[in-house]
Amino acid sequence: MKQENLAMLCDFYELTMGNGYFQSGLADKIVYFDLFFRTVPDKGGFAIAAGLEQVVEYVKDLHFDQEDIDFLRSKNLFDEAFLNYLSQFSFTGDIFAVPEGTPVFPGEPIVIVRAPAIEAQLVETFLLLSINHQSLIATKANRIVRAAQGRVVLEFGSRRAQGADGAVLGARAAYIGGCAGTACTLTDELYGVPAGGTMAHAWVQMFDSEYEAFKTYCELYPQNAVLLVDTYNTLKSGVPNAIRAFKEVLIPKGITHFGIRLDSGDISYLSKKARKMLDDAGLENCQIVASNSLDEYLIRDLMMQGAQIDTFGVGERLITSQSTPVFGGVYKLAAVEQEDGSILPKIKVSENTSKITNPHFKKVYRLFDNESGKAIADELCIYDEVIHEGEPHTIFDPNATWKTKTLTNFTAKELLVPVFRGGKLVYSLPSIDEIKDYCHKQVGLLWDEVKRFENPHAYYVDLSQKLWDIKQQLLQQKR
Amino acid sequence: MKQENLAMLCDFYELTMGNGYFQSGLADKIVYFDLFFRTVPDKGGFAIAAGLEQVVEYVKDLHFDQEDIDFLRSKNLFDEAFLNYLSQFSFTGDIFAVPEGTPVFPGEPIVIVRAPAIEAQLVETFLLLSINHQSLIATKANRIVRAAQGRVVLEFGSRRAQGADGAVLGARAAYIGGCAGTACTLTDELYGVPAGGTMAHAWVQMFDSEYEAFKTYCELYPQNAVLLVDTYNTLKSGVPNAIRAFKEVLIPKGITHFGIRLDSGDISYLSKKARKMLDDAGLENCQIVASNSLDEYLIRDLMMQGAQIDTFGVGERLITSQSTPVFGGVYKLAAVEQEDGSILPKIKVSENTSKITNPHFKKVYRLFDNESGKAIADELCIYDEVIHEGEPHTIFDPNATWKTKTLTNFTAKELLVPVFRGGKLVYSLPSIDEIKDYCHKQVGLLWDEVKRFENPHAYYVDLSQKLWDIKQQLLQQKR
Repeated sequence: MKQENLAMLCDFYELTMGNGYFQSGLADKIVYFDLFFRTVPDKGGFAIAAGLEQVVEYVKDLHFDQEDIDFLRSKNLFDEAFLNYLSQFSFTGDIFAVPEGTPVFPGEPIVIVRAPAIEAQLVETFLLLSINHQSLIATKANRIVRAAQGRVVLEFGSRRAQGADGAVLGARAAYIGGCAGTACTLTDELYGVPAGGTMAHAWVQMFDSEYEAFKTYCELYPQNAVLLVDTYNTLKSGVPNAIRAFKEVLIPKGITHFGIRLDSGDISYLSKKARKMLDDAGLENCQIVASNSLDEYLIRDLMMQGAQIDTFGVGERLITSQSTPVFGGVYKLAAVEQEDGSILPKIKVSENTSKITNPHFKKVYRLFDNESGKAIADELCIYDEVIHEGEPHTIFDPNATWKTKTLTNFTAKELLVPVFRGGKLVYSLPSIDEIKDYCHKQVGLLWDEVKRFENPHAYYVDLSQKLWDIKQQLLQQKR
Repeated sequence: MKQENLAMLCDFYELTMGNGYFQSGLADKIVYFDLFFRTVPDKGGFAIAAGLEQVVEYVKDLHFDQEDIDFLRSKNLFDEAFLNYLSQFSFTGDIFAVPEGTPVFPGEPIVIVRAPAIEAQLVETFLLLSINHQSLIATKANRIVRAAQGRVVLEFGSRRAQGADGAVLGARAAYIGGCAGTACTLTDELYGVPAGGTMAHAWVQMFDSEYEAFKTYCELYPQNAVLLVDTYNTLKSGVPNAIRAFKEVLIPKGITHFGIRLDSGDISYLSKKARKMLDDAGLENCQIVASNSLDEYLIRDLMMQGAQIDTFGVGERLITSQSTPVFGGVYKLAAVEQEDGSILPKIKVSENTSKITNPHFKKVYRLFDNESGKAIADELCIYDEVIHEGEPHTIFDPNATWKTKTLTNFTAKELLVPVFRGGKLVYSLPSIDEIKDYCHKQVGLLWDEVKRFENPHAYYVDLSQKLWDIKQQLLQQKR
């Protein structure tokens, strides 16, 4: 898709509702929407927020071109005054968001939009799809990187991604989540994620012999040559030919930084055999890269089995988050402003109690234990509440209110930062490496119990007493 | 991502290999690559090919901008003559492909590229990602539409798509596979897939009462008003308020085309109860739309249970093909041309026998039984073989060569059509509605046994005797 302006990447109902608000005098009513999710992919303990930079680019430039207006007019559904309004459209509201790379939990707002009803409605689809997509991949990447326990993980999945953005922005999100680089050249050019790669099987097949293919490659790229050794037979042909090429071309030049890549067969077995062959040949420095249908579960097993792998190249199971390919972020009305400027909280009830929303314009605190430095709980508060760090602070489980805990020695950090105010960008976008580094450090502040793959501890996302009271009151009114 | 030119959406190794071919005198060697897949998503019996139109747009405009060249130069890896070559780059080869909407089977080429080695290598990632993504979604949509047995299926998943292209082109592919429309406005504007939609819960919450929200909507959009009835309580509040709005606003105007939408709770139960309430109110024409975590399996069950649903809105499980989110297309070298112009077949062996490739420049015939009109088998042949319809023709199972069948009354249709010849587009792109219609008809030519969701009959993809012999010969050489 070649499309500079994604204003029209909206669900059609956002336009029918927008036109409806316009014609019903509700257009300028200020509303508050929360973007949040309900369950962590792969039954994990936390997710990694990502996708905000693309939201910023989208909102900054949000407008409807004449051809968009003409297209909408052709539907014979929209008021001419509304179409005229759209032709002048720009975003004038406020957006608050958690910075990219932040660990986030179910039920807490990742993004809050405060804007006139039409505007808040029109941005719904793009905000959701950007945050949903990149948070999904950053979360998956973080799991895979944690399974690799310090080994390098590279993103190799472009060809199996769900569209061009899936590949390019997926690789960006994977880097945020902890991957060291990508195979996707465009992600390097556009977003500064280091791209690398050496050869496919076709390179080997293009030459009269495997050895000639390896030798030629080492001559052309003496720095960091990684030879793919499984085109014919990994142990009988690939590894011996690679050893010969390294010894004949690179070692005489004093180069010791090179590697082999295993892309089929049993990676655990082959890596151990190959390691021994390389070591016996005096090539202890030779790295082993593996890249065949990997994910966090297989990598965890390979590590347990002592596989001799230095770098994991992860493809389709990362770039599509294959085991859980959906990040279920939703966008729900939380409050409306009345004419006197007061904020009227709104709730969405549901027969499924887990789908009941948290009403009101909120802020989110993350509470850290000063002794361990670790995160204890997140607390959702009304926008004007303040948690005082010097005073004892009691939190309680909103689903089991008798479970309380009083904190005395803690730090309270607000998670959401202002990104847009009155339509103006007020947030300085961090660099991709700052985001990646921030993510790594923040994940380090979570207890190991929250990071388990299997049955992780449910991190506490609590409501303040004031918010809990308002929620109960609204639920009573709905009876 | 805002990027007009996707030349840089390639795996980095395509560039290192390209530069390597250039420096090794292999750049102009003519090669043949096959794009094919090995397994059908969801263990289905066939897939639907899609994504070719985007391949055509990509190849037509393929070039490297000065900033791309500068970026590549900064890597200190590429020869200056190669960079100069890239700055003049355009695609000069041939591409053959099966038309979009064609049912396709494992092991047969969907796209064949014949081009100088560098060119064939550079297009690898984009060809794969476009065909993989859209074939995945078209295949899933076709399953869902078949489960709905004639009921309307709409694509509602943009917000959960894996990136903007995932949403927009995913909706295009879903339409090809059989969906009647989408919620994605941009897919309508760019690709002519009809977009629709009426309201979200926020619309209902913006008004003082549910009834007022419904009444206002019916007044604004008297044609085809679909009211979302589950914001508060579907049966106690939503349906009665919808009936009242229809009766007070629409029926007096003589309008009978309207509906309600169920988006939570047990759809089977609620649809039957709602149907009865609507019928009792004399609104037999009122349509019922359902849209809560649907896919082919749930729709099949709902149909079996007699759920009263006229239209299914399908979201995340379609737009990500959630149960199988990867279409595993691969791109493998099949042959190289020698200096005398003869074609040297190439094979990729593997310890996994299912991964052994079919060598040579091929064509694919689909053989139809003239009596039933149904497809019997596909046959992969060498490019210069011809199947004569008037003569008895014996096919055999390539994995069990004693299983043979002689056809006497059949039609043989070539599947692959020329798309580019010498870099020039020679294919007239069909309209989206022609593709959708073609898909529907071609699926109709498959036996029901191939269309089963559970354990479908494996359609025959056979090799000609000549191709089989060449493959065996190459395998012998590799021993």
